[in-house]
Amino acid sequence: MSRLREGLPAEAVLTDADVLASYAHDMASFCPAGTPAAVVLPREVEQVRHVLRVASELRVPVVPQGARSGLSGAANAVDGCVLLSLVRMNRVLDIDPVNRIAVVEPGVVNAELSKAVAGHGLAYPPDPSSWEQCTIGGNIGTGAGGLCCVKYGVTAEYVLGLDVVLADGRLLSTGRSTAKGVAGYDLTRLFVGSEGTLGVVVRAVLALKPAPRQQLVLAAEFASSAAAGDAVCRIMAAGHAPSLLELMDRTSVQAVNRMMRMGLPESTEALLLAGFDTPEPGAELAAVGELCRAAGATEVVPAEDAAESEMLLAARRAGLSALEAVKGTTMIDDVCVPRARLAELLDGVAEIADRHRLTIGVIAHAGDGNTHPTVCFDASDEDEARRARQSFDEIMALGLELGGTITGEHGVGVLKRDWLARELGPDALELQRGIKAVFDPLGILNPGKVF
Amino acid sequence: MSRLREGLPAEAVLTDADVLASYAHDMASFCPAGTPAAVVLPREVEQVRHVLRVASELRVPVVPQGARSGLSGAANAVDGCVLLSLVRMNRVLDIDPVNRIAVVEPGVVNAELSKAVAGHGLAYPPDPSSWEQCTIGGNIGTGAGGLCCVKYGVTAEYVLGLDVVLADGRLLSTGRSTAKGVAGYDLTRLFVGSEGTLGVVVRAVLALKPAPRQQLVLAAEFASSAAAGDAVCRIMAAGHAPSLLELMDRTSVQAVNRMMRMGLPESTEALLLAGFDTPEPGAELAAVGELCRAAGATEVVPAEDAAESEMLLAARRAGLSALEAVKGTTMIDDVCVPRARLAELLDGVAEIADRHRLTIGVIAHAGDGNTHPTVCFDASDEDEARRARQSFDEIMALGLELGGTITGEHGVGVLKRDWLARELGPDALELQRGIKAVFDPLGILNPGKVF
Ligand SMILES: Cc1cc2nc3c(=O)[nH]c(=O)nc-3n(C[C@H](O)[C@H](O)[C@H](O)COP(=O)(O)OP(=O)(O)OC[C@H]3O[C@@H](n4cnc5c(N)ncnc54)[C@H](O)[C@@H]3O)c2cc1C
Ligand SMILES: Cc1cc2nc3c(=O)[nH]c(=O)nc-3n(C[C@H](O)[C@H](O)[C@H](O)COP(=O)(O)OP(=O)(O)OC[C@H]3O[C@@H](n4cnc5c(N)ncnc54)[C@H](O)[C@@H]3O)c2cc1C
Repeated sequence: MSRLREGLPAEAVLTDADVLASYAHDMASFCPAGTPAAVVLPREVEQVRHVLRVASELRVPVVPQGARSGLSGAANAVDGCVLLSLVRMNRVLDIDPVNRIAVVEPGVVNAELSKAVAGHGLAYPPDPSSWEQCTIGGNIGTGAGGLCCVKYGVTAEYVLGLDVVLADGRLLSTGRSTAKGVAGYDLTRLFVGSEGTLGVVVRAVLALKPAPRQQLVLAAEFASSAAAGDAVCRIMAAGHAPSLLELMDRTSVQAVNRMMRMGLPESTEALLLAGFDTPEPGAELAAVGELCRAAGATEVVPAEDAAESEMLLAARRAGLSALEAVKGTTMIDDVCVPRARLAELLDGVAEIADRHRLTIGVIAHAGDGNTHPTVCFDASDEDEARRARQSFDEIMALGLELGGTITGEHGVGVLKRDWLARELGPDALELQRGIKAVFDPLGILNPGKVF
Repeated sequence: MSRLREGLPAEAVLTDADVLASYAHDMASFCPAGTPAAVVLPREVEQVRHVLRVASELRVPVVPQGARSGLSGAANAVDGCVLLSLVRMNRVLDIDPVNRIAVVEPGVVNAELSKAVAGHGLAYPPDPSSWEQCTIGGNIGTGAGGLCCVKYGVTAEYVLGLDVVLADGRLLSTGRSTAKGVAGYDLTRLFVGSEGTLGVVVRAVLALKPAPRQQLVLAAEFASSAAAGDAVCRIMAAGHAPSLLELMDRTSVQAVNRMMRMGLPESTEALLLAGFDTPEPGAELAAVGELCRAAGATEVVPAEDAAESEMLLAARRAGLSALEAVKGTTMIDDVCVPRARLAELLDGVAEIADRHRLTIGVIAHAGDGNTHPTVCFDASDEDEARRARQSFDEIMALGLELGGTITGEHGVGVLKRDWLARELGPDALELQRGIKAVFDPLGILNPGKVF
């Protein structure tokens, strides 16, 4: 500890037991967290390097952290570790409208960056629902997605270059500040989604897009998830490019109804929300409305303006909190399937919920086939918690069976470690471990995560 | 050789010396090629696995090849190697409009895929100028770009999953068939741009987009490259999203004029071409025309329809051949700089050309800052060839000085190996070598390339 304190200002090192406990875990259920030795809150790259040099020397595990809004335990403490929280490195260093890039420190909150670039008529598209909390470093750590990914892509597509402190304290620059570049293996993309196991991101060069127009949203209700899934397929097959295409199942619609008294019909089996930010969104809403009706929509409500669009989206935004209110605790899954299999996934989840006598609501980035089946349970009821965990696993098995992946955007962390091995198989896993060993031969960076 | 023939049909193995020589190199100048032991043209994954098993056993180098349209010597033979040409594995295995993916073998020619998906109202955007020859496997090998990347992004953004035969013959599946996924390190992206040094791609899952509308093109002439560079900056800073934004310097304009008698004014120092495939391209052309004029354009010619657009693009398409006609041989560079530095690069290249008494034409994917300074020389004139090589290196040095990269889309191959070391520095290089060793511990896969 004294070695650690040497190179750091006093206020950067916290060791109070209560503070340590409050930093020990992210927002995932069912993920064990160890007891950290210290929390370090650096403000400068040199301080990060110091922490890693000392950690390497003393073989102390280091767990990088952003806002700890993660849903897989990836930022959870391991016993005796240094929790390296990057939240104080939160400066936007540059916004360059000509080259359409932003240069940021890792602790910048996603929404803050969005605000900053909006002032230049630009946007940083990746928009996880947690955008008002989560950091760019965390987004890079998990490879975060969001609502607008169906049109604009995920975090990986927006990270052009990185400065990374390696396990031994060396500072590595990857990538570039240019729009394109193929010089050597793509280390930048390797760091995206690596969950703090390969290095600590201390600076990122991000691509920006021109700010899109205000989107117009349509809501459509369906009497079965099969019909809603069919509508999603028709919309995508017809060549539409929605700026969002979200789906809520019966359980989540009812939960929102109960919490917010939105007056959505209780008969709704699935609610589909489609948004367009094109020059003529009205025309697209009309066309998509027709496709929804052809797929069997019982009601189609196109917004007339931005305010109405926001009202329609309110149900979606309230979804997770509404499901949390059902039983106090939720376990949010993140299975992504080919979008043609969406309806099968929804029906399968409903069957799993029935069989385990559980409430499982599904909210989905339907356009991407990325679903968040959310298991609601009472954590104090041991049997129910066991069934929740069991159903969670069955949902991942179902996702794989349908040709999908166990995680579309939340990552592996500790929650899905065993499932990663199952999805990848032994050969891929061996290569991944090989890569880990190249970057972190002593295994001090976020050990026990991902693998 | 007999071990090799065992698992392969007779017609798949070529050893005739003339044939070997014709397969020994790609289209790059100044890149040495060794003498291969055999060319193997597999039709099945199992045959590829056989080749790699035998090669591993006998420690024989294997060089994967597509159409050999590469411009860095990356597909060149090394002495005693097996040239593993994937061109006969050229089936489009699946086109799925709902999930917007195509599954292809590596030997599918880029233009063939484009044609096949167009029938479903879809597009595979990455469009290298060599699209009528080059293969998807080669595109993945180099991380190819093209004209429409300024709007639609590069190859890396469209590769969702891969089947790869590893150095020891094992078959690895990476990635997914879903729109999103973050399960483990992104091995898929690691293979993109790895130039055949990590494994042999035998199947790719590619993302497709809805087919864009027909684009409308505007041409603008400038009396200085600074003015043209300024126009590019103004267009991008104003938030436009051109579907192409190409630039030709005075030398390439004159070369095209001479070859095609296009009647472009000889006073033109730079020609800018901007395309839009939006619903109202006319409005955008008008706005962009204004920006060009504000930047000092001497003439602005907006196309009225598709035919006129094609005419304007003809000059751009003829650029490389026209430059080749100047002196018989060209050496095509691929420096990418932040787009705000474009004018400085153009001026610097002109200065280098003057100093070395050479003709160097620049054609650029200007919207991306990706330039192709093309050195024209007489290969039989030893002194001129030396100066050509020297100027090529000076251009890369200039690119790095301007905050750019030595390769925007063509890759490193043998041509830029030394320069890669200079761009990356020792730490990144060490990590890259470490990754190489994880995938190819015996060093049999395309040895001597990239590093
Ligand atoms: C209500 C809610 C809604 C959500 N919605 C979405 C959504 O729509 N889409 C989505 O993708 N996710 C979503 N999430 C999950 C979570 O917000 C994202 O995973 C987010 O990217 C985490 O960012 P963070 O700053 O909280 O990182 P943390 O949770 O602190 O860390 C996440 C991972 O990144 C690593 N890390 C953090 N900073 C660095 C760094 N500087 N260098 C290296 N590694 C680092 C950590 O070690 C950890 O492995 C949601 C979460 C909540 C609670
Ligand atoms: C006139 C002309 C214009 C061009 N314009 C462009 C342009 O606009 N943009 C651009 O990016 N490039 C351009 N190029 C360069 C070239 O066409 C691209 O690099 C292309 O991607 C090469 O494809 P190929 O099939 O010819 O591959 P090759 O040249 O045969 O191989 C390229 C690399 O990929 C590897 N490789 C090939 N197949 C496989 C496989 N199945 N598995 C693993 N590795 C493999 C090889 O080992 C090699 O390292 C141009 C070339 C020419 C001649």
